[in-house]
Amino acid sequence: MTQQRRERLVVVGGDAAGMSAASQARRQRGPDELEIVAFERGEFSSYSACGIPYWVGGAVGSREELIARTPQEHRERGIDLRTRTEVVELDVEGRRVRARNLVTGEEGWTPYDKLVLATGARPLRPDLPGIDAPGVHGVQTLGDGQALLDTLERLEKSEGRRAVVVGAGYIGVEMAEAMIRRGYEVTVLNRAEEPMSTLDPDMGRLVHEAMSGMGIETVRRAEVTAIRTGDDGRACAVVTEDAEYPADVVVLGIGVAPETTLARDAGLPLGAAGGLRTDLAMRVRGHDDIWAGGDCVEVLDLVAGVHRHIALGTHANKHGQVIGANVGGGYATFPGVVGTAVSQVCDLEIARTGLREKDADAVGLSYVTATIESTSRAGYYPGAQPMTVKMIAERRTGRLLGTQIVGREGAAKRVDVAAVALTARMTVEQMTALDLGYAPPFSPVWDPVLVAARKTVAALRAES
Amino acid sequence: MTQQRRERLVVVGGDAAGMSAASQARRQRGPDELEIVAFERGEFSSYSACGIPYWVGGAVGSREELIARTPQEHRERGIDLRTRTEVVELDVEGRRVRARNLVTGEEGWTPYDKLVLATGARPLRPDLPGIDAPGVHGVQTLGDGQALLDTLERLEKSEGRRAVVVGAGYIGVEMAEAMIRRGYEVTVLNRAEEPMSTLDPDMGRLVHEAMSGMGIETVRRAEVTAIRTGDDGRACAVVTEDAEYPADVVVLGIGVAPETTLARDAGLPLGAAGGLRTDLAMRVRGHDDIWAGGDCVEVLDLVAGVHRHIALGTHANKHGQVIGANVGGGYATFPGVVGTAVSQVCDLEIARTGLREKDADAVGLSYVTATIESTSRAGYYPGAQPMTVKMIAERRTGRLLGTQIVGREGAAKRVDVAAVALTARMTVEQMTALDLGYAPPFSPVWDPVLVAARKTVAALRAES
Repeated sequence: MTQQRRERLVVVGGDAAGMSAASQARRQRGPDELEIVAFERGEFSSYSACGIPYWVGGAVGSREELIARTPQEHRERGIDLRTRTEVVELDVEGRRVRARNLVTGEEGWTPYDKLVLATGARPLRPDLPGIDAPGVHGVQTLGDGQALLDTLERLEKSEGRRAVVVGAGYIGVEMAEAMIRRGYEVTVLNRAEEPMSTLDPDMGRLVHEAMSGMGIETVRRAEVTAIRTGDDGRACAVVTEDAEYPADVVVLGIGVAPETTLARDAGLPLGAAGGLRTDLAMRVRGHDDIWAGGDCVEVLDLVAGVHRHIALGTHANKHGQVIGANVGGGYATFPGVVGTAVSQVCDLEIARTGLREKDADAVGLSYVTATIESTSRAGYYPGAQPMTVKMIAERRTGRLLGTQIVGREGAAKRVDVAAVALTARMTVEQMTALDLGYAPPFSPVWDPVLVAARKTVAALRAES
Repeated sequence: MTQQRRERLVVVGGDAAGMSAASQARRQRGPDELEIVAFERGEFSSYSACGIPYWVGGAVGSREELIARTPQEHRERGIDLRTRTEVVELDVEGRRVRARNLVTGEEGWTPYDKLVLATGARPLRPDLPGIDAPGVHGVQTLGDGQALLDTLERLEKSEGRRAVVVGAGYIGVEMAEAMIRRGYEVTVLNRAEEPMSTLDPDMGRLVHEAMSGMGIETVRRAEVTAIRTGDDGRACAVVTEDAEYPADVVVLGIGVAPETTLARDAGLPLGAAGGLRTDLAMRVRGHDDIWAGGDCVEVLDLVAGVHRHIALGTHANKHGQVIGANVGGGYATFPGVVGTAVSQVCDLEIARTGLREKDADAVGLSYVTATIESTSRAGYYPGAQPMTVKMIAERRTGRLLGTQIVGREGAAKRVDVAAVALTARMTVEQMTALDLGYAPPFSPVWDPVLVAARKTVAALRAES
């Protein structure tokens, strides 16, 4: 037996995808065979960015609860994780990265045999007057969350009780809830007609109405033009084309874009949405020794057959597992997504999977839709809550294309049934016969998803 | 155009399957084309038998809430529903049924062109001394529920506060909860080692432990030999081979068998479990003009490829829809079941789908199993509850064979993901990539079902 050279794996990015990959690779190959060096710009590792709204809102007590594994814990598992260290250049030909210690300013090249890019996403931050003023907060990183909490603490001593949230996507609505919990008057400025543009507008309207019922004002078609600052230099209002909204604190929840500056500068392949393009094993296309995963990549939409950028912790974790398995000498693939997402605003549950009407239009799919009202439990069972389910199916074939649900308890995770049906490319006719769990505390005798499937079948028949 | 003779549809049984079939047929064909006569032995129609435990327990306020449609409402929709009328003979060759008015005792033959048998199930009632004594109650019909409530009301004036439930299947555990809610000391006598024999014993043990925590005593291996009666002739104790359990009220929750006396006497085909055998259109095998559905038929188990008797309201409703469509001149099929069932005991949720280990053994399937512990929400999110998921997959192919879940909130309906995966014949490897809804209030970043699938994949690899 010949002694094999110890390989070095370099990981860029210390959150979900990067550290899952590192951990999985470590599980498969010990430190004698594989050295693992991970660079993280921030000071935290492996944390739940999705939990930040709940930490800010006070449901989660401390930052530490959001951290699945600290840098020290990673180091104890044989991963050389270097925090506060930013990779500033990737030399693909030379198989090395240049990293800068953000504390000391020192820079140096680190060679790699295998590279994992997990650089995540950056929040969209429109170039507006006042956008960088104190009191304007993103909520992308734990540092962002801490800064927002510091502002809130500061405001507790003052009269300040008005929050303006810019953006009405899932981060926007979750932050609206967080600010309501903190006792703020909340206004959400929405560029579109209805909140949650991940839903069709008819379903988004239900979210709008429910938010109004919670005392959250959502402004339609609000194009923000500036953040006004006061004499103290702090944000004091958000200005739109039509009006001005006083604000003691401004939260940006506009969405994110893949952070791929490093990759683009190195000439790696990016897709139309700006994310890295990989194969099914999460290997960067055309590069045998580079993998990428998490919020910096595009994923295959299994329903539409196109690639999309979807920043979601659950995908990032799966990518990391797949990359780690492959880097560690095993085999795994990430086949793609069907576009499932669930959110909560107070007791409102919002869920979607598959295509919206406009997604189907964009890829040339012709469809019918059906929308039904049902309840979360048997109608006679105490606590039964209303639920609206919309279903979209392809004309002729009857294949399920998408499902959206807005309701209270039991609404969000019901969409998983449609997510599995999409994965299996079921027709809505097949779905009407699904053997779903039934007991009065959990469902009407016809589950809302089955009722929606039946109405969609009827819509298909009416069309044919 | 020639005038077509008006056909007569006769329906035997006025609950879920029968009246769904009648209603669906009526929707497709008006009274000019199709006369519909339905016979029901009892005085109620279209009620939720599954809701009886919640009515007895007090969660549901009145019997009327359990009735989806009264006899009068059916009659207003052009269905000649005759309650308190029992069909006592079926003359297949003569295409007629003999019905007896249970009030007047009158009998008469009614000819049919098309016949639907929806005679339901009868509760198992072991032939024991004292079984018919006052104070011993089944909970199959609304009448049974009313009789039990009358007994409970009577006991409220006395000292009686001890209930013995015979049987620890889903009716038994739901009735145990009902009696706890009514303030009774509850003992459940279980013939088997663990409650919920619809689960594997290792998962049943979790139910046993949780029930103990709720103050419900479950006695293992309790073979009931008699009901002891007091001087007043009423039940006062349940006697087993080993002991005697004082009881002010006795509830039988032993399960049910298909009610097919009429069908058997008429020579219709029955399966090994005693239920009627139908084709996929729910037509009785070998009989062009007779359909059957609900608790009196056997259904195809799509996972094991065998026929089973599964009495469940949700199947009965689907059967009724299918029968009604076919009888009305349309086309529909009931492809089969995967064996999904969910139940609740207080805040404990219990779910299963697919095969137990012994079901797989019985049909010659070789398998691996994996069991995991997870939580209903992100671990850091308030209210996260523990959940145990067991998964069974076929060796070699990796096909999912079954899933069982025991937990608190969010446990029961999570099994639907596995139910759809079983229907689509997915492998557990495919399941690891399922795009299930994730947000901290609804799931850990790895949904418990995904965690179970991953561990099952690992078990498969270890075996190969």
